[in-house]
Amino acid sequence: MSTHDAGRQATRRRTPAEEARTLVSSMSVAALASTDSGGAPWCSLAVYGPTLDGDPVLLVSTESEHGRNLLGDPRASVAINDPSVPGDPLDRPRITLSGAVVRPEGRRYEDALDAHCAAIPGARLYAAWEDQLLCVLEVQRVRWDGGFAATQALTRDEYRHAEPDPTARAAAKIAAQLNKDQPDGLLAVARELAGARGAVSAFCTGIDRYGIDLSCTGAGQSAAARALFDEPLQAAADLRPAALELVRRARSAGAA
Amino acid sequence: MSTHDAGRQATRRRTPAEEARTLVSSMSVAALASTDSGGAPWCSLAVYGPTLDGDPVLLVSTESEHGRNLLGDPRASVAINDPSVPGDPLDRPRITLSGAVVRPEGRRYEDALDAHCAAIPGARLYAAWEDQLLCVLEVQRVRWDGGFAATQALTRDEYRHAEPDPTARAAAKIAAQLNKDQPDGLLAVARELAGARGAVSAFCTGIDRYGIDLSCTGAGQSAAARALFDEPLQAAADLRPAALELVRRARSAGAA
Repeated sequence: MSTHDAGRQATRRRTPAEEARTLVSSMSVAALASTDSGGAPWCSLAVYGPTLDGDPVLLVSTESEHGRNLLGDPRASVAINDPSVPGDPLDRPRITLSGAVVRPEGRRYEDALDAHCAAIPGARLYAAWEDQLLCVLEVQRVRWDGGFAATQALTRDEYRHAEPDPTARAAAKIAAQLNKDQPDGLLAVARELAGARGAVSAFCTGIDRYGIDLSCTGAGQSAAARALFDEPLQAAADLRPAALELVRRARSAGAA
Repeated sequence: MSTHDAGRQATRRRTPAEEARTLVSSMSVAALASTDSGGAPWCSLAVYGPTLDGDPVLLVSTESEHGRNLLGDPRASVAINDPSVPGDPLDRPRITLSGAVVRPEGRRYEDALDAHCAAIPGARLYAAWEDQLLCVLEVQRVRWDGGFAATQALTRDEYRHAEPDPTARAAAKIAAQLNKDQPDGLLAVARELAGARGAVSAFCTGIDRYGIDLSCTGAGQSAAARALFDEPLQAAADLRPAALELVRRARSAGAA
């Protein structure tokens, strides 16, 4: 790999659209804005599972306020964030999706129900009850806010065509494992593969399908560094083997 | 105390309106539903601090989508829940407030700013910036959902006149401390003051200004029990002394 390639590749991370799709796929609780018969907004809690296009599939009771609202005016918006992210909530990555809900029929009903129940397995028990309204929020507008005032609109197509990171659900656990059992290995990765030659310790702050983020210390300073996997990973189960392969590569580079 | 009094008092707990006010006072992050110029709903994350009447004071940027929406149509709704409550999110206590935002002036501006900054201290740094809109959601309608489908409308006055539980912010910590350092004392409370004569162990599952909830086991079964303080507590600092006073009372009843 040329130096040019290394520099280009080392910055590779999830795009805003991929971050957005990953967040929506990682969560199953949203705030829902609907409109009552007088045109006033109404905010409520709702659970969802996303379709393959990232459209949230909601299951609401027609006897609830938001259910009645959606029957009267299909326009809706959901806001999703991960409340477990520590720190200032306004620095937390979050997304707003807006559009209108449709009630799928036939095969599309089955697909939407599957998408909802993949996130909310218990819903299969009551989805067929008479008062339950299964509806798909067909997303027209997307606003992604990556935190720290990095807000931007995404087009519908950017959002729909981006892929959620399939490794996201295991990332925190694998990062914690690596910090526990591979401190020397992470240091080798930092020094040999992430350009932090003078590092004396390295701590994994994040891991995703493209690579691993490290916080390195050395000479009384700390700095962020990143090392990339050879190829984007396709499954959560690939995270740890890929990280260990980076460690192996770093050690053989160090020994050379 | 007569048996009748004990029975009546032992059921005393926060009313739905007090639960609602306590939840709103305990949190500072809400989902906000506003309406765009075309009448479509928009859902977003917002931070707030409540006034003494329980009206959320919001501080939003007029350059943000929800800020522009509120300038165009003051009707708004917020949904608040505590995402740290474990278990099914639809069983989580939550609230929707709806009404219209007003922009307070003069002394009312200062009071509203104080209410916001009591919850969001950092806001004092930027509240005066030109793009910042401080507004009070004057609550007209309240829907409280205590979880497990226990949803109910509260009148504006029920909501306004209820008092948030002043001990709530310390409750989880004090309960954990009692479970750690007072297992025998809690068992005495369960047996002597909460009617669980046959209990062989007791675990504090909750504590509030009115009393303490216990989960008791004995004879291979478990059951909930509750013991009450003599008077409703007025501050978080009173929780532990009040619990230890119950332990003292239980031990002297047991020794008698």
